[in-house]
Amino acid sequence: MQKYRLAIDAMGTDNAPKPEVDGAIQAIQTYSNLTITLYGDEAQVRPLLEAAGNPERIAVVHCTEQITNYDESASAFRVKKDSSMVRALQAVKDGEADAVMSAGNTGAYLSAATLMIGRIAGVDRPCLTTVFPTTDKNKKVIFADLGAVADGTAVNITQNAIIANEIAKVILKKDEPTVALLNIGTEEKKGNHLYLQAHQMMKAASGINFVGNIEARDIMAGLADVVVADGFTGNIMLKSHEGMQRAIFTVLKQEIKSGFLTKIGGLLLKSAFKNMRDTLDYTEVGGAVLAGVKVPVIKAHGNSDGFTYFAGLRLGLSFLDAHITEKISDSVQAQAVSKKAIEGNE
Amino acid sequence: MQKYRLAIDAMGTDNAPKPEVDGAIQAIQTYSNLTITLYGDEAQVRPLLEAAGNPERIAVVHCTEQITNYDESASAFRVKKDSSMVRALQAVKDGEADAVMSAGNTGAYLSAATLMIGRIAGVDRPCLTTVFPTTDKNKKVIFADLGAVADGTAVNITQNAIIANEIAKVILKKDEPTVALLNIGTEEKKGNHLYLQAHQMMKAASGINFVGNIEARDIMAGLADVVVADGFTGNIMLKSHEGMQRAIFTVLKQEIKSGFLTKIGGLLLKSAFKNMRDTLDYTEVGGAVLAGVKVPVIKAHGNSDGFTYFAGLRLGLSFLDAHITEKISDSVQAQAVSKKAIEGNE
Repeated sequence: MQKYRLAIDAMGTDNAPKPEVDGAIQAIQTYSNLTITLYGDEAQVRPLLEAAGNPERIAVVHCTEQITNYDESASAFRVKKDSSMVRALQAVKDGEADAVMSAGNTGAYLSAATLMIGRIAGVDRPCLTTVFPTTDKNKKVIFADLGAVADGTAVNITQNAIIANEIAKVILKKDEPTVALLNIGTEEKKGNHLYLQAHQMMKAASGINFVGNIEARDIMAGLADVVVADGFTGNIMLKSHEGMQRAIFTVLKQEIKSGFLTKIGGLLLKSAFKNMRDTLDYTEVGGAVLAGVKVPVIKAHGNSDGFTYFAGLRLGLSFLDAHITEKISDSVQAQAVSKKAIEGNE
Repeated sequence: MQKYRLAIDAMGTDNAPKPEVDGAIQAIQTYSNLTITLYGDEAQVRPLLEAAGNPERIAVVHCTEQITNYDESASAFRVKKDSSMVRALQAVKDGEADAVMSAGNTGAYLSAATLMIGRIAGVDRPCLTTVFPTTDKNKKVIFADLGAVADGTAVNITQNAIIANEIAKVILKKDEPTVALLNIGTEEKKGNHLYLQAHQMMKAASGINFVGNIEARDIMAGLADVVVADGFTGNIMLKSHEGMQRAIFTVLKQEIKSGFLTKIGGLLLKSAFKNMRDTLDYTEVGGAVLAGVKVPVIKAHGNSDGFTYFAGLRLGLSFLDAHITEKISDSVQAQAVSKKAIEGNE
């Protein structure tokens, strides 16, 4: 069995370092081939490990700094060199770890990861990918880009498709996942200039099963295995879903609390609500993965607990196990080669 | 009391012409200062009016054609000149009606309306506006653009703000509505090139109470009275909300049906679910209004029933009553003047 070494920024979650330590302990208990190094404030991290009986295969590296959400995304990693985030990334860069995980400042993390670790040859811009739920508990969607690149081009969107396609093959266990372009209509001629261009580019791309445009309301209906967009649009899509989910839960809670019978009704539906949340919870997988860089860079949610953190960690390990980085590299190269072949024939 | 004449495309809804006729009858009964002309297939429209005892102040104009969703948006109105949609628009153009309403092919309708009726002087591109719900039943948000302009510029987004601001003053009854720019983060430096530019332009615009960026997940929390975006992004936002709403209702139904006690729970919460739907239903207002053209152009939902159709019609009448078109014209002119003043000072 191949051995994996994971570098974790222990100071990233809202309740750091507890979720990180809990997640790490669970991972160590689950995977015998795993060793973890926690980067962070030793005075906070060590007691949590001691309380758990100092589990084996977990090391701690003390860091004196921390990148917060107030730090400037683009420059934070240059300014705070002894921060837990930068030290964890440095470990991967130096070949001391195979993957890295943080729940800290997203912008800073993605910038630092891209610049410190570097892109896979041929990848123009890495993308933030996640596993999105559908109304069918057994069906998931791979989405990219959730917001790594604010000014995505048609080339970026097409590469997002190639990257997410490789991820879908592994995570969804499908040979030829269907790949769709998020757009404002299903017809080929719908969309703004960027999306009209991306559509044609995806149509011409080899190695993906492109099925055309998909509207945002059909993503959770599971009409495609892979859905891609530029990072700006993907982020608006994600947070709009989140907004409606929050709104429904808020109003439903108010309504249930409004009377005696509705309270009884709420109790009777307690497990139904829980199942619904579980089915539609896009935080269930624990985070997102920055794909297109040389190692899996896992971004956990800031509000993760130990369970969610472990789920993100598991997602990252599945990337390692399936050699997704190598597969992305091959596909992007093949695409570049096929483009050259086309250009050569012209 | 001022008299209003409304031109209705009676063939636009999925179940046309019944919702249109029902909505028109309800409107006539509600507003004594209103006359309506229904454009459509007389053989289908007339019997419905007869069954209702031929209500006064409703005329029918027979049209031999119909624009469907299969017609090309940009050219449909030139090809099908005797369609119910084009004839209704022609009535407004010819000064025979004060406002127009259709539930038909959105793209064709918006193109035809813009080109046949014409823009308000100074408006670069009209925008599709709607009243969006929040978790507080008594608080609404005016949103623009929902998708009239696929390739919006920073100037378009800023004009959307000026237009929606005038609508908000009337519909929300606020003197200085807060105006926010939809974006991927609240910080001023967030967003793609277009949104960075739009942010600066809105900041410099006079006559609006610009409060900065808003994230999609905070729209329904009611954090701003007016939210604006380009049409592509606005459409993705709208349909993402719709997707999550549908997904939750789908899964919740499955869960309620799954057992005896959950069925009882579902019955006890029947009114709670209905209240929730009513609070968060963005179709409640019956549609959207294309603002920035010379008369109110009301777009009803394709799946409207008579009640929803009437709600859209009422929204259109409130535009007429408040002279919103004139107010938009004044604000856009004032903004143009203030821009000239700035340029003159440079």
